[in-house]
Amino acid sequence: MEPHVGANSQRRGPSEYHLMAIVEYDGTEYLGFQIQRRGRTVQGEIERALAVVTQQQVRIVGAGRTDAGVHAKGQVIHFTVSWSHALADLQRALNAVLPADVAIIELREAPPGFHARYSARSREYVYTIYNGAVRSPLAARYAYHFAKPLDARAMDQACACLVGTHDFLPFGWPPRGENTVRTVYRARCQREGDFVYVELEADAFLRAMVRRIVGNLLLVGTGELAVEGFARLLSLKHRRTPAVAVPAHGLCLVRVNY
Amino acid sequence: MEPHVGANSQRRGPSEYHLMAIVEYDGTEYLGFQIQRRGRTVQGEIERALAVVTQQQVRIVGAGRTDAGVHAKGQVIHFTVSWSHALADLQRALNAVLPADVAIIELREAPPGFHARYSARSREYVYTIYNGAVRSPLAARYAYHFAKPLDARAMDQACACLVGTHDFLPFGWPPRGENTVRTVYRARCQREGDFVYVELEADAFLRAMVRRIVGNLLLVGTGELAVEGFARLLSLKHRRTPAVAVPAHGLCLVRVNY
Repeated sequence: MEPHVGANSQRRGPSEYHLMAIVEYDGTEYLGFQIQRRGRTVQGEIERALAVVTQQQVRIVGAGRTDAGVHAKGQVIHFTVSWSHALADLQRALNAVLPADVAIIELREAPPGFHARYSARSREYVYTIYNGAVRSPLAARYAYHFAKPLDARAMDQACACLVGTHDFLPFGWPPRGENTVRTVYRARCQREGDFVYVELEADAFLRAMVRRIVGNLLLVGTGELAVEGFARLLSLKHRRTPAVAVPAHGLCLVRVNY
Repeated sequence: MEPHVGANSQRRGPSEYHLMAIVEYDGTEYLGFQIQRRGRTVQGEIERALAVVTQQQVRIVGAGRTDAGVHAKGQVIHFTVSWSHALADLQRALNAVLPADVAIIELREAPPGFHARYSARSREYVYTIYNGAVRSPLAARYAYHFAKPLDARAMDQACACLVGTHDFLPFGWPPRGENTVRTVYRARCQREGDFVYVELEADAFLRAMVRRIVGNLLLVGTGELAVEGFARLLSLKHRRTPAVAVPAHGLCLVRVNY
């Protein structure tokens, strides 16, 4: 029998760890988080780094399947791996092997039964709009340029009607036959100089939901759609809202709460 | 004789304009501002855009020759061009033709005799350090990652001794036989969360001067060099300071004052 090994780094043999990690990435060069048959994905890069560092085929599970081009400051993943050194060493080794646009920000043991996706109570996203008259090369990578002046206060009022439990089918895309009822805990819009931020927190999001909500909020911001008109979109029984989704590069998964 | 044409947009024929523009760029993909025989430069891209839009070979002059990889939020250029429409149309056309990482933020008529470089009273640079323990993919493009904790207050104290008129030869690179006396108007260092910003304003800067100053300031920040030791570097008669230049991608030319 092996002697009992705890979380200390004195142990000799490898231990099986159930781990959770906070992952930050610049999504510009990725087809999204989730692994696909072809093309560069964040999951693919992390699993490749785990294979290099641990010599094991490790499958990771992420809290949110961010789309192509979407960034993350606080994506959460879990995985199980054998490791015989300190966790800080595993984190350092992974970050040394990962490409520059992905990093493991935190790595720690997960509670028993922890599941990055199913254990999550809520996800927080921020969509960043650069609302200057002229496009900004230094803001272009992480903010969507929208030149027409936006009334962020009206957009914030429209946000208020999203809070609560609703059928978000009108903002869901594409149809999937899944349950489209979600609970939004927080929805706000605020301006800081030339930047307008839309912040949304919900138990979970439908695919492209944040970007389709923001697309319609922009119509409120320009005065093309009244706050009441925006509120009525929630009762639509189809997905033909006035606006399409805004581009992915303004979106960032900032935090997952457990 | 042509009738008198002013700045109004009613005129028919082209007028010769002496213009100044504020230029913003992401320097990541450039060999620097100044045009070179080969390779991508900001000046080259702007002159190419001017040629496309105005059908003229226009030579531009910039206030500062930023090095390869250095960014700018407020580079200033001047040039002379014939144009028969509104200046706003010229700006829009240039921004439509320029690549996504360069933009003309402002365009207006320059005072007679205005020279972007020689008329400048001072230049302001900011060097951004990301001082978190783990590298940040979302900060990586515009901030230099330095993992050891930095004492920004000590760095700020060291900055104070840069203010005034000094021979900056120890921080100049490479040797050029030019006058190395410069006047620093403002030098400060401050922390905001995991970011540390070094802000410098001077009448002009020697090549790589900001990056070599910051390199040595980092030694102050880690405690390897005392504030007094940093102050003594200014009286060196050679260029062998303890630290080398920090990387270009943390540096941004934020403003030129006239």
